[in-house]
Amino acid sequence: MSDMRGWIEELEEAGELIRIKRPVDIRTEMGALIWESRDKALLFENIVGYPGWRTLAQAPGTMRQVGLWFGVPATKAVEEYSRQLLGGPTRCEVVGGGPVKEVKWLGEDVDLLRIPINQCWAQDGGAYIGAGLNIVRDPDSGVRNMAYHRHMVMGGRRVGCQMRTETHQWRIYQKYESRGEAMPVAIVIGHDPSLYFTGSWSGDIDVDELELAATLYRNKYGKCLELVKCETIDLEVPADAEIVIEGEMPPGVREMEGPFGEFQGYFTAAMGMNPVINVKAITMRRDAIYKTLLNFRREGDLMVQFNMSARCLGRLRELAGGLDIHTVHVSGDLITVIIQMTQRFRGDAKFALIGALSGPYLHHKIAIAVDEDVDIYDPEDVLWAISTRVNPQRDVFIIPDVRGHTYDQSLVEIGEPGRANWQAIGSRMGIDATKPSLMNDAEERKKFERTRPIGFGKVFLKDFIE
Amino acid sequence: MSDMRGWIEELEEAGELIRIKRPVDIRTEMGALIWESRDKALLFENIVGYPGWRTLAQAPGTMRQVGLWFGVPATKAVEEYSRQLLGGPTRCEVVGGGPVKEVKWLGEDVDLLRIPINQCWAQDGGAYIGAGLNIVRDPDSGVRNMAYHRHMVMGGRRVGCQMRTETHQWRIYQKYESRGEAMPVAIVIGHDPSLYFTGSWSGDIDVDELELAATLYRNKYGKCLELVKCETIDLEVPADAEIVIEGEMPPGVREMEGPFGEFQGYFTAAMGMNPVINVKAITMRRDAIYKTLLNFRREGDLMVQFNMSARCLGRLRELAGGLDIHTVHVSGDLITVIIQMTQRFRGDAKFALIGALSGPYLHHKIAIAVDEDVDIYDPEDVLWAISTRVNPQRDVFIIPDVRGHTYDQSLVEIGEPGRANWQAIGSRMGIDATKPSLMNDAEERKKFERTRPIGFGKVFLKDFIE
Repeated sequence: MSDMRGWIEELEEAGELIRIKRPVDIRTEMGALIWESRDKALLFENIVGYPGWRTLAQAPGTMRQVGLWFGVPATKAVEEYSRQLLGGPTRCEVVGGGPVKEVKWLGEDVDLLRIPINQCWAQDGGAYIGAGLNIVRDPDSGVRNMAYHRHMVMGGRRVGCQMRTETHQWRIYQKYESRGEAMPVAIVIGHDPSLYFTGSWSGDIDVDELELAATLYRNKYGKCLELVKCETIDLEVPADAEIVIEGEMPPGVREMEGPFGEFQGYFTAAMGMNPVINVKAITMRRDAIYKTLLNFRREGDLMVQFNMSARCLGRLRELAGGLDIHTVHVSGDLITVIIQMTQRFRGDAKFALIGALSGPYLHHKIAIAVDEDVDIYDPEDVLWAISTRVNPQRDVFIIPDVRGHTYDQSLVEIGEPGRANWQAIGSRMGIDATKPSLMNDAEERKKFERTRPIGFGKVFLKDFIE
Repeated sequence: MSDMRGWIEELEEAGELIRIKRPVDIRTEMGALIWESRDKALLFENIVGYPGWRTLAQAPGTMRQVGLWFGVPATKAVEEYSRQLLGGPTRCEVVGGGPVKEVKWLGEDVDLLRIPINQCWAQDGGAYIGAGLNIVRDPDSGVRNMAYHRHMVMGGRRVGCQMRTETHQWRIYQKYESRGEAMPVAIVIGHDPSLYFTGSWSGDIDVDELELAATLYRNKYGKCLELVKCETIDLEVPADAEIVIEGEMPPGVREMEGPFGEFQGYFTAAMGMNPVINVKAITMRRDAIYKTLLNFRREGDLMVQFNMSARCLGRLRELAGGLDIHTVHVSGDLITVIIQMTQRFRGDAKFALIGALSGPYLHHKIAIAVDEDVDIYDPEDVLWAISTRVNPQRDVFIIPDVRGHTYDQSLVEIGEPGRANWQAIGSRMGIDATKPSLMNDAEERKKFERTRPIGFGKVFLKDFIE
């Protein structure tokens, strides 16, 4: 199956999923369990107060699981995804119906509170839909846009929706708002990971992230990603999704939203008077599985990290000079970009660092370049490279007064959420922790060969212990 | 027992020691086994070619084991050691004899090759004594000095000895050398950890590290550290050591020494024409246990990290301003100092960072200050603090053209090992990754409270899995 159910099967067959059959409370228990399960996906099969509902979490929760989806080792997943993105978007097919239409809540039946939307973080302002992918359409170009936005449940028929001023959907909403019109929004919850991988893609506003998901989807399943028309708004949504919420974001309306535990590990960012979505319809599968998402070092960040890493890798590989970029890893807080590369010529690393510090995301404040012998997924190894390969006056540069990410609490915030001028201003730093160049510093480079103990890779403790 | 045997017992009782009864080859196997055992101490009881010999490694190999020795939790060990150092040195008692005199190899009997001195790293120039503490005496002041120096076995009666130009023992050797005299040296191998903790102490040249060890020793065992006179040189050595090598470092002699896997994870540093020690006698216990030491992220670095951390903590607590310094952790490569503190007043962190970047060690090129909510033993958490709390133009400073450590390959080396002018020149960097101040930025500080999932610390997966 080419949907969330197929993915659950795939995870389970690979020993990557734990079924939780005991009752779990979404208001007091679920968050800690997801947080603890850093290694395995969780399928909650018994949700207190929501008979028949199930919830999927941490799927993928590790780069190993991401690699599983792509059919490559964990360390090759970023490169594989980046390669597939080169294929560009793929048209989706609009069909007459699909599983997501099995149940339709319309009019008075609309009630978000009947869905087990859990509160993730202790400090959150309430229950939040973390895995909701907003689908909207640019009123000028007609191009669809799909993106993660956080949704605070404000009752049975309204959610708050935080939008940063740099996001495409904010810019689209501004168009509707300037015309005094409401923006139609569909919120997709639960589908194949391809949608979640590309949900945080960013680039040209005229590229539809749903069509990028369709490329991954076609590559894996050999078929089109099928869409169905919404019931109450002029938008298309994936036919095999678990749940779709249809609604409208009215112009000129802002309500108090937040706090919410965000990717950087704090919860007050972007809290304030934010837009809302009035829900007009909810459609879903008969036995819909809710998809939850925990940020900060867990699935929510992982999928964004993964996508950002691939985007950065793709853009770095476009740089002049024939750079030898192996892969990229964005940290669990989305702020630091680690580039694994071999510096062929002097200055290659700094050229790459500049590239990483200016890209389709405002998040990336710090970029670190390391060599192929550094495990970029091991923070101890990255800090070691900085310790032993950096002469700060030569290898560290800081660019002052650069626009930054509004959730980055370390920067200076100007304006406030929900306003057109809202922004952050700060600085960016590049750290070149690579070895001297291959071509022009070969002798010097040899000094940085790592020590390996006698018998390394051949002699193991297990063979010496009774 | 208040010696290495007592420590072995203490480790074993705490479940911290593994006995390796199968035969292990010191030239092809031992290194990898020590490297792999990051969590437990190893006692090798069957050394191929050295019947009757045993070798102790990774003891302590973790901060938990260091805490065990001090009787405090791992996270409190640095503070406890720093506190004990405030007691200053304790006179040692010279006694008439002791276990280390049970066996005496004199004259023709002297043969280092009969001791199972292992080669640690694949790239090493040969077998190295890693756990050898040099004891020498300043010819002017008469003050003893004890310090780690690496010793390459150059045959049965000679070892090479690398000495950096900033070390006290180099400065003492220079005095002997300028007089055309040989410097008497005793090399102590294997004793209570107190000697290994203070072996890397550095401060005023007129403080004897053996007498600092005696302070820790007295605090733990309630008695004096006993010394005995050497057989062939005018020096005193611990009576309860496992092995003592007596020798002389002749003036004006340099021989090729290296490579050797050093603390920073590389092996060519300091390789060159270094001083040698001609061995005159070896005394030991009847069933002496050899003590080996693996550097880089293992015991060798751990003991030095630990000592440096305590030294830095002690010095930071002397700073003006009533700084609230919780603890200090020096990274596994000895180059980066992480300070855990609460910034009471604005600028406290930068003041502390300056302090950490100038101390009794040339190693510390990078200093990072973090708050009490950051786990300084977890590199992921430290990188997270840098990601989310640092605005580089405000929080990072670089001091160019500072003298550095000659083993730090990233710096510029001037002169060469064994010469009086040998040095490194580079730069230092401070990173203030603390939260805004408690006193004058209380509101801003609140933004940096960490998110915690619902049920954190109360709800656990084990209670939900069948």
